Amino acid sequence: MYGVLVRVLARTGFSPERAALCARLFADASRDGVATHGLNRFPRFMEMIRIGVIDVEASPVRISGAGVLERWDGRRGPGNLNAHHCMDVAIGLSKRHGAGCVAISNTNHWMRGGSYGWQAAEAGVVAICWTNTLANLPPWGATAPRLGNNPLVIAAPRADGAIVLDMAMSQFSFGALESYRRRGEPLPVDGGYDVNGRVTRDAGAIEASRRPLPIGFWKGSGLSLMLDVMAAAFSGGRAAHEIERDPLRETDLSQVFLAFDPSALGPPHMADVVERIVEDLHAAPADGAPPKYPGERTLETRRRNLADGIPVDPDIWHFVAGL
Amino acid sequence: MYGVLVRVLARTGFSPERAALCARLFADASRDGVATHGLNRFPRFMEMIRIGVIDVEASPVRISGAGVLERWDGRRGPGNLNAHHCMDVAIGLSKRHGAGCVAISNTNHWMRGGSYGWQAAEAGVVAICWTNTLANLPPWGATAPRLGNNPLVIAAPRADGAIVLDMAMSQFSFGALESYRRRGEPLPVDGGYDVNGRVTRDAGAIEASRRPLPIGFWKGSGLSLMLDVMAAAFSGGRAAHEIERDPLRETDLSQVFLAFDPSALGPPHMADVVERIVEDLHAAPADGAPPKYPGERTLETRRRNLADGIPVDPDIWHFVAGL
Repeated sequence: MYGVLVRVLARTGFSPERAALCARLFADASRDGVATHGLNRFPRFMEMIRIGVIDVEASPVRISGAGVLERWDGRRGPGNLNAHHCMDVAIGLSKRHGAGCVAISNTNHWMRGGSYGWQAAEAGVVAICWTNTLANLPPWGATAPRLGNNPLVIAAPRADGAIVLDMAMSQFSFGALESYRRRGEPLPVDGGYDVNGRVTRDAGAIEASRRPLPIGFWKGSGLSLMLDVMAAAFSGGRAAHEIERDPLRETDLSQVFLAFDPSALGPPHMADVVERIVEDLHAAPADGAPPKYPGERTLETRRRNLADGIPVDPDIWHFVAGL
Repeated sequence: MYGVLVRVLARTGFSPERAALCARLFADASRDGVATHGLNRFPRFMEMIRIGVIDVEASPVRISGAGVLERWDGRRGPGNLNAHHCMDVAIGLSKRHGAGCVAISNTNHWMRGGSYGWQAAEAGVVAICWTNTLANLPPWGATAPRLGNNPLVIAAPRADGAIVLDMAMSQFSFGALESYRRRGEPLPVDGGYDVNGRVTRDAGAIEASRRPLPIGFWKGSGLSLMLDVMAAAFSGGRAAHEIERDPLRETDLSQVFLAFDPSALGPPHMADVVERIVEDLHAAPADGAPPKYPGERTLETRRRNLADGIPVDPDIWHFVAGL
């Protein structure tokens, strides 16, 4: 999968190193079980390059800085390359100064947000990062989208891998709704409203109303808004309500990348703290399987796919391989 | 209210300045409509001093630092004074270095978390802070508490006040459940499980099972765990599962205080970004009143209480005034 994506990207105008990193980020997402932001997203990514929304040659530039807080302009470059670069800068700041914060404007969809959490954890530091999105979530009390679902990622290193939370502010993404509808399954919990304003577990009814529920109702609505405030204020870029609503033209996003390196503070080692918390979690009484930590399922999927191969949608695979 | 609390605290061994700040933080919480962490919490605070859990004379000390990341020991001092101090240090770091992160171990309940958000916003900076708590929230998939509800605060300054999110990771706090039960009202949304493992809106049934729901089900469970990992790893203090379960002996908490000063990065002004987002929010189509931003109701309550006086529970007021 990586080889095919590298070839397609190189032909599309990416430099060899940028094609390699971009292909790896897409392939890693599929390898980790997030095909929606891996291979399955690749055709839309290519279409956004074709229509000029994504500029394959643009790299982010530093606009201004105040100590460990930096503002960058993404210049509409590929969102995953821009995000990877910003997290890299934040990691460097955290290793020199304990913590770092990099905000970027005018960037594109970062694909799988968890990628940048894994990136930080593999560098031995803690990360918090988030992005705004086009308005796709009605604020609590409203009947039409105004907020983004603004995915939030928090990651910490472990001796054996990483612990990575990757969650949007809506209870279910539109990708997840589509997937439940196609399988003909009801959502496991209430996911939004139908067109008559009734709460429902019918994924198709929520797709029709465009009214998904925020996590925790009023709480996720407030959290989404605060993430947007910080992303727009730190980066100087657009807030969710200012972003083009057409998914194919969703660009000029604002993102924030925080990294923390507590290793110089003294004991305990972060890995030990994480292990104690994970052990206690796994020992919790449960009716079924023991509770999992964020990212635990990712690691299981990764191991299985590395052993058996990455399952793909054959139509999408043939389309991409033929590009 | 402030005068009465200052007098009681001074008699309890607080220095004049510490009595004044501690009293103000309690009184401000009641003034802002958060009596559960204002006047109503004061008798328990005094009891925790009496039994030696809170040391009125202890101030936090700096243990170690790495650039803008600092680790402090709260030495079981009053939780609101410790938290106010840490936010003050973080604000100072952010004004000198763009951002600052202060973690504290061995501290006590910070009372109203929003206080430290307002504190940062009034100093013109953005804040993110959180605390862990005793285990009071079952992880997603478990039947008994293992996680804390770990309140999270995010605040930004506005031209006219501040925008302050103050939310726990459980859909309803035990204080909120008690209040619904006393009023005989059902919860507005599902709040937890009954003793038979059925999801319910009956507040009393959730108090009995000790199984409140995390916000967003699996998502809030993961977020609570990540906040705990960072609080314990940065501060070197206890994780939620290591904290004494008896509410009267809930101490040795771990907290994190982040501050950001984007003003040196250049335009736009943060206040303008916030105003644009708030204006768009208020203009959202709604069936009822327009959606509110986090903290909007707080400001309305504050204005009303400053004009008309702070409503109090007469029994609690007479008890505290007689201390």
